[in-house]
Amino acid sequence: MFLEEAAMKISQEIHVPKKFAYTFGPNHRPIATVQPGETVRIFCVDAAEDRITRASDLPSKRLNFPFLNPQTGPVVIEGAEKGDTLVVEIHEITPTRDWVWSALIPDFGGLTSTSQTATLNAPLPEKVWIYPLKDGFIHVNKRIKIPYQPFMGTMGTSPEIESISSLAPGNYGGNMDCADICPGNKILFPVRVSGAHFFTGDVHAAQGDGELCGVACELAGAVTVTFNLLKGRKMDWPRVVSPDAIMSIGSARPMEDAARIAWRDLVLWMEADFGFDRLEAYQLLSQVGVMRLGNMVDTLYSMVAKCPMRYLPKTKLPC
Amino acid sequence: MFLEEAAMKISQEIHVPKKFAYTFGPNHRPIATVQPGETVRIFCVDAAEDRITRASDLPSKRLNFPFLNPQTGPVVIEGAEKGDTLVVEIHEITPTRDWVWSALIPDFGGLTSTSQTATLNAPLPEKVWIYPLKDGFIHVNKRIKIPYQPFMGTMGTSPEIESISSLAPGNYGGNMDCADICPGNKILFPVRVSGAHFFTGDVHAAQGDGELCGVACELAGAVTVTFNLLKGRKMDWPRVVSPDAIMSIGSARPMEDAARIAWRDLVLWMEADFGFDRLEAYQLLSQVGVMRLGNMVDTLYSMVAKCPMRYLPKTKLPC
Amino acid sequence: MFLEEAAMKISQEIHVPKKFAYTFGPNHRPIATVQPGETVRIFCVDAAEDRITRASDLPSKRLNFPFLNPQTGPVVIEGAEKGDTLVVEIHEITPTRDWVWSALIPDFGGLTSTSQTATLNAPLPEKVWIYPLKDGFIHVNKRIKIPYQPFMGTMGTSPEIESISSLAPGNYGGNMDCADICPGNKILFPVRVSGAHFFTGDVHAAQGDGELCGVACELAGAVTVTFNLLKGRKMDWPRVVSPDAIMSIGSARPMEDAARIAWRDLVLWMEADFGFDRLEAYQLLSQVGVMRLGNMVDTLYSMVAKCPMRYLPKTKLPC
Amino acid sequence: MFLEEAAMKISQEIHVPKKFAYTFGPNHRPIATVQPGETVRIFCVDAAEDRITRASDLPSKRLNFPFLNPQTGPVVIEGAEKGDTLVVEIHEITPTRDWVWSALIPDFGGLTSTSQTATLNAPLPEKVWIYPLKDGFIHVNKRIKIPYQPFMGTMGTSPEIESISSLAPGNYGGNMDCADICPGNKILFPVRVSGAHFFTGDVHAAQGDGELCGVACELAGAVTVTFNLLKGRKMDWPRVVSPDAIMSIGSARPMEDAARIAWRDLVLWMEADFGFDRLEAYQLLSQVGVMRLGNMVDTLYSMVAKCPMRYLPKTKLPC
Repeated sequence: MFLEEAAMKISQEIHVPKKFAYTFGPNHRPIATVQPGETVRIFCVDAAEDRITRASDLPSKRLNFPFLNPQTGPVVIEGAEKGDTLVVEIHEITPTRDWVWSALIPDFGGLTSTSQTATLNAPLPEKVWIYPLKDGFIHVNKRIKIPYQPFMGTMGTSPEIESISSLAPGNYGGNMDCADICPGNKILFPVRVSGAHFFTGDVHAAQGDGELCGVACELAGAVTVTFNLLKGRKMDWPRVVSPDAIMSIGSARPMEDAARIAWRDLVLWMEADFGFDRLEAYQLLSQVGVMRLGNMVDTLYSMVAKCPMRYLPKTKLPC
Repeated sequence: MFLEEAAMKISQEIHVPKKFAYTFGPNHRPIATVQPGETVRIFCVDAAEDRITRASDLPSKRLNFPFLNPQTGPVVIEGAEKGDTLVVEIHEITPTRDWVWSALIPDFGGLTSTSQTATLNAPLPEKVWIYPLKDGFIHVNKRIKIPYQPFMGTMGTSPEIESISSLAPGNYGGNMDCADICPGNKILFPVRVSGAHFFTGDVHAAQGDGELCGVACELAGAVTVTFNLLKGRKMDWPRVVSPDAIMSIGSARPMEDAARIAWRDLVLWMEADFGFDRLEAYQLLSQVGVMRLGNMVDTLYSMVAKCPMRYLPKTKLPC
Repeated sequence: MFLEEAAMKISQEIHVPKKFAYTFGPNHRPIATVQPGETVRIFCVDAAEDRITRASDLPSKRLNFPFLNPQTGPVVIEGAEKGDTLVVEIHEITPTRDWVWSALIPDFGGLTSTSQTATLNAPLPEKVWIYPLKDGFIHVNKRIKIPYQPFMGTMGTSPEIESISSLAPGNYGGNMDCADICPGNKILFPVRVSGAHFFTGDVHAAQGDGELCGVACELAGAVTVTFNLLKGRKMDWPRVVSPDAIMSIGSARPMEDAARIAWRDLVLWMEADFGFDRLEAYQLLSQVGVMRLGNMVDTLYSMVAKCPMRYLPKTKLPC
Repeated sequence: MFLEEAAMKISQEIHVPKKFAYTFGPNHRPIATVQPGETVRIFCVDAAEDRITRASDLPSKRLNFPFLNPQTGPVVIEGAEKGDTLVVEIHEITPTRDWVWSALIPDFGGLTSTSQTATLNAPLPEKVWIYPLKDGFIHVNKRIKIPYQPFMGTMGTSPEIESISSLAPGNYGGNMDCADICPGNKILFPVRVSGAHFFTGDVHAAQGDGELCGVACELAGAVTVTFNLLKGRKMDWPRVVSPDAIMSIGSARPMEDAARIAWRDLVLWMEADFGFDRLEAYQLLSQVGVMRLGNMVDTLYSMVAKCPMRYLPKTKLPC
């Protein structure tokens, strides 16, 4: 299942660390250092630290709050400085096992009372599903199989002074649970500390928009990426360049605020790089813009605003 | 551009009324009556009652609040009773002119202060765009042309006792601005008054997700539909059956509440009609569900939750 | 318990109508006409149309959705025209019975899933409480008695073209459930139709901020008010003049939008009538403003922004 | 203006540190250690690190994002362990200067577009106000003076693994900007790390509900507090015991979620400590509960839910 290493010129394998990072922050000891231009393969455990392996492994018994969603990182990118942009080109996501899990976790999810949308209703039942992953599909049951469409639920750089739970998304990336953080795309993150301090984890074999129940098809695996730097290029929010679109990702609550952040960042990007007048970009997105729901279950919701590539001068792409 | 009438068996043309409906409500005098099974062509003016025809026709001068978004209707569907479902199969949307307009309207839109999200900031400039519509494209400028992908911004039945502005969406349909209200799809609306009292208007030649600036490519045109009834079948929110998916549409603020309504209705539909256990449907949508943003500018936001048809037993479709 | 009628110069008693209004709208047949300056006593049934009289009268059995929260009205105010302001001075609210009820209603309330904040959780139990009202207190049990502090949960004028459920608040008043709609205060409503078409109902003997479970101490009673007009004075949202403060009431979702509307309207009022620079008013309210939560359970939430009277030149009061 | 030290038995003065904490987190070097029962006076600079001293000191020039809202701390409380509750009794807040400032800061505040509620509108003008503080009043101008009613805008303990900007409130306290964090009240915080790691700062001489423009009457000063521990008593959110009420503070977005958190925590507190059935507490708060808006400008909004003391058995108070 692995790509030809020669072809990819993978220069390092970054293994699962002995001590995980449970926050995105500047104070973790780096586990590896890479040069701009390097291609590396990064191994990740799943969001439950590989502790859920069968239907009886209930999250309330197996998880150890707040030590959740373990990240592989930080990876230092040499030469990255505050005010730069880190470009992470994702080549492939390779499973390191042949099954995934999902679950209903009490007081967590999109169609239940939660710790943030607090009510007096009784919680939904706790439940774990284990699905085989084979032949490019997740096999839910005899009738239903879901295509393997992997992405990294969690990826980003360190905030400047904060250390934020890896359950949260934010303007540094984090737990965005956006399906566009996938092979074939370049993900741009703001650099806010020397070395950028890159983290990733939470491999998803598939996920619907919004990660509705709060848990995707949770996988352990390895992600192969090439790191690059855009020196002196400052961004406020994560962005994506795919073959088909440019994208800005906003994370906030309520959900309309996530959407506003994403749209506004996209308008400003179109103005700054692609030669649009600001209000003309706003007008064009009103007719052709695409908005995808990342997650509606995490501490902040994530929305991805997209401008199809066919409306853009491709020569102006930053990477 | 019109379909062969013989082929479509169009039995009536329902023309633009002398007196428009500016609300969805039970007290308007019906303008036409149809039988279940009938196919009709319904003509509509644009959302500005065809008053904006050039860049200098500023909305603040040409619009007459609250007489906005004029609807063709009500059309009475014979035999429809409270508790039934009205099925509206959309065959085609045909322009009755060769241009569209869009605009920035003060204190309205997704990236501006509004009357609902009120601030002290100065409003954005007011501005009107006129675009030719020809050869299947909206011609924004020499470089940019947008495919003609028409849908009805506004469509629905009457609430039971309320009369709600045609600027608003709700559980009866209304101004949802969802691009799935388009040719090829069957739209299901709750019937809450005798005769259903169907309205439609606000033809859109194209629109991005969310109708970001609040104004799509605004068109006048005719929509050809076939009406049918599902007797004794009660629904709470509008639903859609397309060739590819079943959909539930929720409208609310904040946006996550629109999403919750849509997802919940879809889960309950999968349980009631397609043989899913409720929590299994919730789980499946977490992995394969699609969420599309309809509008983020109207009095309520509209979100469309979808389950791809390939995960459903097609034999269970209600229509 | 009634005031001396001679002293109050009550010129009319407006009795409970045979046919209630369940919407705030322009199409109801008027039940009475008053002159500006007239003082009248208006009788109201309770929000359940007096159908809940004991603990076994469960709302799900006794209520008839959507025929809820019956209003006494419309009362026509002679000479009122669109663009005027109606001033309603509330003198007293007099019970017409010696008990109140409250309830938990399924899928309704501030700490439960609802039809708008939809989840899959099981609803809370349904429950009715009956409390005696005597000696100026609501007697919850032997230990707890709550002072009788009555106000009108629902009061307002007709929207121009819409007919909105009397369960909803809005920019015309309606079901705001704000405890400042009480004796001693003057309530200002925008006039949007000839005659203003005034409605009121939903007597509350007491209520906490937010009407948390969705149901206050529900009472039947009579409210004595004097109507006056401010001709040619246009307002966007309801306002209150109390002995201690001026207030603006905003209704919206999410709650911060209700707050923004109320604060903004208050800033603009301080600028227009009280001689403040707009940003100085914004600054002053940042230091002395008071915000009271009306309801957090209705279709829109209501918030009351207040500027204490001691910071205002009293000579500038509009009434 | 200082209390008699003998009377207060102040055992330590904790001075402004050389290096401030700009986050609430576990990794700062402690600046002092206290025993349970000790009374200390803690000195704080203002939210702008005392850099704004005149109207021309514009925040955009004088502030150094993200190094904002400097905290005095962490103070270690000996013997505090995860799962305990820290009780902070506030005796007095004493100014260390005779003036305060407030400001309009671009893209920050309650009635403006912000980085979280992002729009394309131009920002409001930047502006600084300096007000004398004397004779117990803040002197806005010749006509307007505001009573000195000081409180600590920011106070709390460390999260377990996160380090959160001191601009944010959360379930550990932080920048709640709630006027009930004032002399005469006991503030209860969850202990999540050994030693509790207490921080405080952001002295406010006065503030309206919501801190509307984002900036209160900003003061430098000293707060005198007594620390105590409730061993083995776990709480989820900050609570307050005042002479008149018990209170729970929720922080979240949208605002209704902050309110839900606060109400729910208060209901659970009434159930756990004061002998109420859960639904009876919910019902009682529906009739007598008080909700105060703390802030509507910070990264999360803060709401304070209160149950008046007269409805509670005082013997059950935890402190």
